[in-house]
Amino acid sequence: RINGDRLWDTLMEMAKVGPGIAGGNNRQTLTDADAEGRALFQKWCEDAGLTMGVDKMGTMFMTRPGTDPDALPVYVGSHLDTQPTGGKYDGVLGVLSALELARTLNDLNIKTRHPIVVTNWANEEGARFAPAMLASGVFAGVHTLEYAYGRKDPEGLSYGDELKRIGWVGEEEVGARKMHAYYEYHIEQGPILEAENKEIGVVTHCQGLWWLEFTLTGKEAHTGSTPMAMRVNAGLAMARILEMVQAVAMDAQPNAVGGVGQMFFSPNSRNVLPGKVTFSVDIRTADQNKLDSMRAKIETQAAEICAELGVGCSVEAVGHFDPVTFAPELVANVRDAAEELGYSHMDIVSGAGHDACWAAKMAPATMVMCPCVDGLSHNEAEDISKEWATAGADVLLRAVLKTAEI
Amino acid sequence: RINGDRLWDTLMEMAKVGPGIAGGNNRQTLTDADAEGRALFQKWCEDAGLTMGVDKMGTMFMTRPGTDPDALPVYVGSHLDTQPTGGKYDGVLGVLSALELARTLNDLNIKTRHPIVVTNWANEEGARFAPAMLASGVFAGVHTLEYAYGRKDPEGLSYGDELKRIGWVGEEEVGARKMHAYYEYHIEQGPILEAENKEIGVVTHCQGLWWLEFTLTGKEAHTGSTPMAMRVNAGLAMARILEMVQAVAMDAQPNAVGGVGQMFFSPNSRNVLPGKVTFSVDIRTADQNKLDSMRAKIETQAAEICAELGVGCSVEAVGHFDPVTFAPELVANVRDAAEELGYSHMDIVSGAGHDACWAAKMAPATMVMCPCVDGLSHNEAEDISKEWATAGADVLLRAVLKTAEI
Ligand SMILES: NC(=O)NCCC(=O)O
Ligand SMILES: NC(=O)NCCC(=O)O
Repeated sequence: RINGDRLWDTLMEMAKVGPGIAGGNNRQTLTDADAEGRALFQKWCEDAGLTMGVDKMGTMFMTRPGTDPDALPVYVGSHLDTQPTGGKYDGVLGVLSALELARTLNDLNIKTRHPIVVTNWANEEGARFAPAMLASGVFAGVHTLEYAYGRKDPEGLSYGDELKRIGWVGEEEVGARKMHAYYEYHIEQGPILEAENKEIGVVTHCQGLWWLEFTLTGKEAHTGSTPMAMRVNAGLAMARILEMVQAVAMDAQPNAVGGVGQMFFSPNSRNVLPGKVTFSVDIRTADQNKLDSMRAKIETQAAEICAELGVGCSVEAVGHFDPVTFAPELVANVRDAAEELGYSHMDIVSGAGHDACWAAKMAPATMVMCPCVDGLSHNEAEDISKEWATAGADVLLRAVLKTAEI
Repeated sequence: RINGDRLWDTLMEMAKVGPGIAGGNNRQTLTDADAEGRALFQKWCEDAGLTMGVDKMGTMFMTRPGTDPDALPVYVGSHLDTQPTGGKYDGVLGVLSALELARTLNDLNIKTRHPIVVTNWANEEGARFAPAMLASGVFAGVHTLEYAYGRKDPEGLSYGDELKRIGWVGEEEVGARKMHAYYEYHIEQGPILEAENKEIGVVTHCQGLWWLEFTLTGKEAHTGSTPMAMRVNAGLAMARILEMVQAVAMDAQPNAVGGVGQMFFSPNSRNVLPGKVTFSVDIRTADQNKLDSMRAKIETQAAEICAELGVGCSVEAVGHFDPVTFAPELVANVRDAAEELGYSHMDIVSGAGHDACWAAKMAPATMVMCPCVDGLSHNEAEDISKEWATAGADVLLRAVLKTAEI
């Protein structure tokens, strides 16, 4: 069993880096706060005897050696970056529990046949640089390094430049490492485990996703002196598209979602009808056909809405992954570990995307989840209990040991 | 008659200050570009023998003396500030035509009984600091100086601090000046004069306005793992309110408008349902009862929409003026001047708000308008012809002379 107090203290220490405004964190990718968090994590890992490798995307790989020189490592990790108004646990719990796992093995003087690599993937959130899970996506060969380096934040700064600025461009080619298996522990970010009163989620699948970035072109004009009939109203088209996305998601029930998190009006002045409205639609479901049909419906109906208003409409897919089925043997390891440790558990589908989704392309992969209060995440009020955190980390340790072999 | 070439050259000189990105201007209130524009205007005025007074709001009053020491001045002006993506004529035409009027009187060696004060009102646009017509509003006693100084731009900088920063805090108490009359010349910013093929708009009324700033409070939550039924979706409430504002404006036809120019999502991240959505509704009509009923309908229905979605809704009126009826004797002066000069003309209602609306509280006031291409304004592509500009300035000169008396 892991040391729950030590894990909790480590979580609370990391939460001091990049504090938010309401008790959570703002430690967005490649900011100064991210650099500070990385340095702290590096120090902790080195104190635990792990050795660091960093790849050209800035992902940190902290290795605890194995006893068999021919055995590929088992990777265990998540991400330390957060949303602009993020919680203290989303991602961080998985990375620091992987560190706690290494610390526990040290305490118990346990050696494993396979090396264990505690991993901090860069830019999982995708809040500053879309898409999410960018570094693991490059690792899995889904994106090129050039594509990733060229991704821009809303201020126009690029991933490549910002990575250089904070001093975390590594030497390793991205994806050069071979994995024996990949485990990731994460808070659920949804309401199911808490509602079902289960301590552990055994993650069998992950929802697929499309991020569709709409750019609507209207006619900038005076809000007062432009008659209703002369308006080319991109704001109105946006409103109709939001309502339509909601309807498409409701039609796709159960187990599908759709919504809009990001919105920009231009020039964004009270007395100017917007010449340009940009917004990002997020749709997800674990059913591949349903996902494709939601996307098709949204694009078709948006084009109709815009045509009726004379508004220009272009759509770019800025994020995508297909639904994922995790490796049955690893899923069984997680389920067995929970069972053996006496933790209540259930099988669940991850609602959020995770680095495990891309890692699953490279090696057998799966995830462990713990509940979070009210299913709330991507909110500074995100919360978990020390008991939940500990239960999941215990399960992670035991499942990883099944794969890494003592 | 004024010198149309000189007026046009002066307009083109001013357009070089604070250039936009598409041929127009970005010379927003109290920016460095505004300061540069003010200095250039001051120099031109002083070269024309006018003497400057500046009030505590930063409004510039450039006086051409009269022959009767007891006669109150006739004020003639508009504004040099622009929208973020503004045109070269909105406001500027009125200020520089007032200067051209003084230059013409100098050329012709004409003395007037009443002094003439060429005026550049501060912060007419209200784009950076709501509400619009802020300095003339303080002048007319509608707002206090403290209220105005405390108005904040989207970055949180205040009017008072920014006015100090650019060095244009004047000595004069705001509103201490007494006016004999006020004339303002402006582009129409709407499509009517061009459609009716008239050179001159004789402005009899101005639409009233409400700017209603909505703040919707939802629940920040993960776009992927938050089931549809658990969402407190402020973005969806916003979409429904935009559609409802459109419906209220359409119901109020003819001669009423409603729309939304400014929108902020928070935290504005692709995978976070917004915790807060702020946007500004602009409704206008020249009919007082209709204006009040539009506002009431919008507030009531918005509250219903939000209640249904569990979204918090608060509304602040950040801008308002009642419909204005301009002084009949001055309106007649404009009509007669157009007639005497042989310019085609028609009576119109101003769709936009103007400093004349507040000046009308202090003295008899009216406006002259010229057409603009496609009715387009608050757009860098805003355009007028030299002939239109000249016609309106000729009418302005002749109408002002009727009041200022030779
Ligand atoms: N776990 C998580 O929030 N990842 C960010 C990518 C996503 O939006 O699912
Ligand atoms: N003329 C003009 O555009 N004034 C700005 C205030 C308004 O929105 O009407």
